[in-house]
Amino acid sequence: MLAPAPSPAPVFGAVRARRPRVHCLTNSVAQAFTANVLLAIGAVPSMSTDPAEIGPFVASSDALLVNLGMLTGSSRQAIERAVAAAEASSRRWVLDPVFADRSPERAAFARVLLARGPSALRLNEGEAAAIGEAALAEAEARGTVVAVSGAVDLLRGAGRRATVETGHPLMAEVTAMGCALGAVAAACLAVEADAFAAIAAALDGFGEAGARAGAEAAGPGSFVPLFLDELHGLGRPADHQGHPG
Amino acid sequence: MLAPAPSPAPVFGAVRARRPRVHCLTNSVAQAFTANVLLAIGAVPSMSTDPAEIGPFVASSDALLVNLGMLTGSSRQAIERAVAAAEASSRRWVLDPVFADRSPERAAFARVLLARGPSALRLNEGEAAAIGEAALAEAEARGTVVAVSGAVDLLRGAGRRATVETGHPLMAEVTAMGCALGAVAAACLAVEADAFAAIAAALDGFGEAGARAGAEAAGPGSFVPLFLDELHGLGRPADHQGHPG
Amino acid sequence: MLAPAPSPAPVFGAVRARRPRVHCLTNSVAQAFTANVLLAIGAVPSMSTDPAEIGPFVASSDALLVNLGMLTGSSRQAIERAVAAAEASSRRWVLDPVFADRSPERAAFARVLLARGPSALRLNEGEAAAIGEAALAEAEARGTVVAVSGAVDLLRGAGRRATVETGHPLMAEVTAMGCALGAVAAACLAVEADAFAAIAAALDGFGEAGARAGAEAAGPGSFVPLFLDELHGLGRPADHQGHPG
Repeated sequence: MLAPAPSPAPVFGAVRARRPRVHCLTNSVAQAFTANVLLAIGAVPSMSTDPAEIGPFVASSDALLVNLGMLTGSSRQAIERAVAAAEASSRRWVLDPVFADRSPERAAFARVLLARGPSALRLNEGEAAAIGEAALAEAEARGTVVAVSGAVDLLRGAGRRATVETGHPLMAEVTAMGCALGAVAAACLAVEADAFAAIAAALDGFGEAGARAGAEAAGPGSFVPLFLDELHGLGRPADHQGHPG
Repeated sequence: MLAPAPSPAPVFGAVRARRPRVHCLTNSVAQAFTANVLLAIGAVPSMSTDPAEIGPFVASSDALLVNLGMLTGSSRQAIERAVAAAEASSRRWVLDPVFADRSPERAAFARVLLARGPSALRLNEGEAAAIGEAALAEAEARGTVVAVSGAVDLLRGAGRRATVETGHPLMAEVTAMGCALGAVAAACLAVEADAFAAIAAALDGFGEAGARAGAEAAGPGSFVPLFLDELHGLGRPADHQGHPG
Repeated sequence: MLAPAPSPAPVFGAVRARRPRVHCLTNSVAQAFTANVLLAIGAVPSMSTDPAEIGPFVASSDALLVNLGMLTGSSRQAIERAVAAAEASSRRWVLDPVFADRSPERAAFARVLLARGPSALRLNEGEAAAIGEAALAEAEARGTVVAVSGAVDLLRGAGRRATVETGHPLMAEVTAMGCALGAVAAACLAVEADAFAAIAAALDGFGEAGARAGAEAAGPGSFVPLFLDELHGLGRPADHQGHPG
């Protein structure tokens, strides 16, 4: 079954109404932009990476993002504890194996984490190739929704399939765009019980905001404030455009 | 005594004239925005967190910000050395116990630091509750100016009280806004001998810039560049608006 | 020989055509802006600082930036390994000894790295004084191009000299501007065999973009998106302005 995703407006409306806390273990390049993206959609970000504190932070959050953008010894330990805390408190979490295609050690670590059963895996085509189709298929079989970003985003989970074709070329010319999408996915998972629908809404709303901002922007610099303003409009009463496809 | 704060223009004019160096131990989410805020008001930021270097950096600065946004083992050590260096060289410092309400260990560490006698403590209502009124009252008795941010900012110090009502709702939808305010407070403390007046000016000027930017912004994305441009105007000859209240 | 630099358009055109991967060991304040600057000129940034991963990242990159903005024990080790990997795979690298004038230990570390023979050294006048003319002259004799930023940028290498006078005062009021220039220099070194010409183009194109953005900006906040948009135009068919001098 391959179908376009439904309108993201209800899911983003629920994020804005319930203001989920999203704890992000993410790389320092992406932290500020990711926090601003979460605030723009009405979620509440936290970013502590201290292994000594990560437990209480995850336990008092509604969802977790684990982004491998910048691994260090201490962040591996923080990730380990964060995933354990998410499991212990039944929090959903999203894995984003950034640059798994640039370092074999990182791809291996990503496969180990994937076997822990995140609610969603978000990655691009190169990273998907590095992790390998076998690991992706096993993850899907365990219930993980897999979202592969590209010119067209491909979504798979529990036998369902969807494509998302929103977005804009300028999104590839701004850093941390994919990382921020992972955080949005976590926020949507915190408010929408159907994980597949949550991830589809995240990809679609994010891409719609990007398409609108890109239509107005003069380049990647002016794109960023326009994009955050567009995210700020998602899920509000005026956000009645529905799905463009 | 409860009075509106005086105009912040003279204090921001002094910052622009004297260009104080402000060393910031702050979290990586907030670093770039905080540095840009300090540059916009005419101060000179530095951000090194290396315990091995922190002594010379603090000793060659005019004020210090200690923000607990992202604690790690190494940042605790850096904070310890930075506060010792500030004490040894009689530099004023500001404590910002970010997220003290999210981790008991962090609240405890914040109380220990507060007992070291910062010139100012900047926090929000949740963090103030986590630290506790007893600790706040003791800090005020020791000479620390306590600024609690909220819909209305409350300022207390040495028996004086003030409120600051400037600001804009979009300020709560941009990350690191409070962290950057802590750095502005440190810059004002470097040029204004009356610590209470320095903090009142910091809150008021920051809020005024936010109110002006918010009036023009289409959302949190367009707010940021407008806000930095407004800060860039504070304390200049054209900044004759004085206090709006 | 003291001559104005040639037009930067061909070098930026080559960056856009070949999309060099630039690995940046840089401080967390500068990471996001540096990544956005590299993306805007068409290069591909990576930023991992993990000593365990740095080897594969550098080996799969086209050039390396080593920025000392925020040293820690672990970043020293990462720098050591990154420079070794650059030497082993014959990758060019740029050294940016940020704040060498604020910490004697950092100036000493910068001199040790400079003796390893980077293709270029980018620094400001204060940092140049801290490192010392003797070390700069030795570096030039070993083949390093030395670029000292100031009101007028001075470039020296292998007996050649050039000045670059583009730029705008607002560039000094935005954080990480010099750090981002170091990354642009690395990208230009990846595509232009003549290191002196590569660095001259980097300084000139960067300054031209700044001059154009500064002419339109209302302050340092609005400057940043305009600047990134201008960088995004460098080396494209429409970039026919050539050298302004």
